[in-house]
Amino acid sequence: MAEPSLQALTEALRRLPGVGQKSASRMAFHLLQHDREGARLLARALEQAATQVRHCSLCHTFTEDEVCATCRSPQRDRAKLCVVETPADQAAVERTQAFNGLYFVLMGKLSPLDGIGPKDIGLAKLFDRATAGELQEVILATNFTAEGEATAHVIGEALKQRGLKVSRLARGVPAGSELEYVDLGTIAHALVDRRMK
Amino acid sequence: MAEPSLQALTEALRRLPGVGQKSASRMAFHLLQHDREGARLLARALEQAATQVRHCSLCHTFTEDEVCATCRSPQRDRAKLCVVETPADQAAVERTQAFNGLYFVLMGKLSPLDGIGPKDIGLAKLFDRATAGELQEVILATNFTAEGEATAHVIGEALKQRGLKVSRLARGVPAGSELEYVDLGTIAHALVDRRMK
Repeated sequence: MAEPSLQALTEALRRLPGVGQKSASRMAFHLLQHDREGARLLARALEQAATQVRHCSLCHTFTEDEVCATCRSPQRDRAKLCVVETPADQAAVERTQAFNGLYFVLMGKLSPLDGIGPKDIGLAKLFDRATAGELQEVILATNFTAEGEATAHVIGEALKQRGLKVSRLARGVPAGSELEYVDLGTIAHALVDRRMK
Repeated sequence: MAEPSLQALTEALRRLPGVGQKSASRMAFHLLQHDREGARLLARALEQAATQVRHCSLCHTFTEDEVCATCRSPQRDRAKLCVVETPADQAAVERTQAFNGLYFVLMGKLSPLDGIGPKDIGLAKLFDRATAGELQEVILATNFTAEGEATAHVIGEALKQRGLKVSRLARGVPAGSELEYVDLGTIAHALVDRRMK
């Protein structure tokens, strides 16, 4: 196991999230034994993505262009802006086909304990964007975790001060679930946020 | 999510064992957002390993040279040969520091259902090597799975026909375990393979 290139590969694979020593060495062995073509393909894809992918100058999501396809699209409703934490969250909202506005991707969340402040998630840019143009409503779709909620609160207050309409994704009982098996916090939120018929 | 280089990266990451769609896209986002240097490092390590790593001409393990360091070492006991399935298994035996002989790494196991026969795990080469030189004992250290046991059986019979001394790793109760919690098959094997004091 002292081969330098094998050790270097195992150590490099450990930089992937969720990959420890054992998985990394299993991955390295698999690629070398059964899929060298896959190894070369992955090498090229990594190099290519690391070089070409940058952030959309308007919404901060990953793109290969100056402005991403969503921001460029003439079919999107420019009166609504949905604020999400990551491109994966953006993709989840897109898959619902229930939102046709634009996005702002924070690429993170406020997390003072990890040293992540307003600058790191581009809040100044978000505020600039929110106050310029024909924007009418900002929908806060950060996660319903402690940090996500705090981030939504900070952004919401700042945008309200700037006179914008701000909303937050509804909290409530998930589709298809039975009350008996839903946790109490969720039911409590669904009661507080109940909707008039 | 339609960026071609991001999609290509996610698909390439899915070729890693144990990585599905969600993990692959999490890995891609992580590298692009927090660790581009890691992405480039991994790209170089993959390319390097795919190009430089080959199989030792004597024992079949991964090496960058014609013959691996273990096979070249003058300190190893050339009278004993330990047959293992993979370089990872070889590393496990090495870590015990209880074996100072040479290895033969099958780089797989007999598995007729997957179309893996004697040729794929280099048995002809193993038999050549076992009958040439000063070899006295072959220790079969394939895994204690159905395929590993079958592989050990086939190799053992063939080597015994060639007049060689063949042994198999002992089956028994793992170190530090309490009988109450050991599975019955293991205790049964430990009884059959019991050792005279």
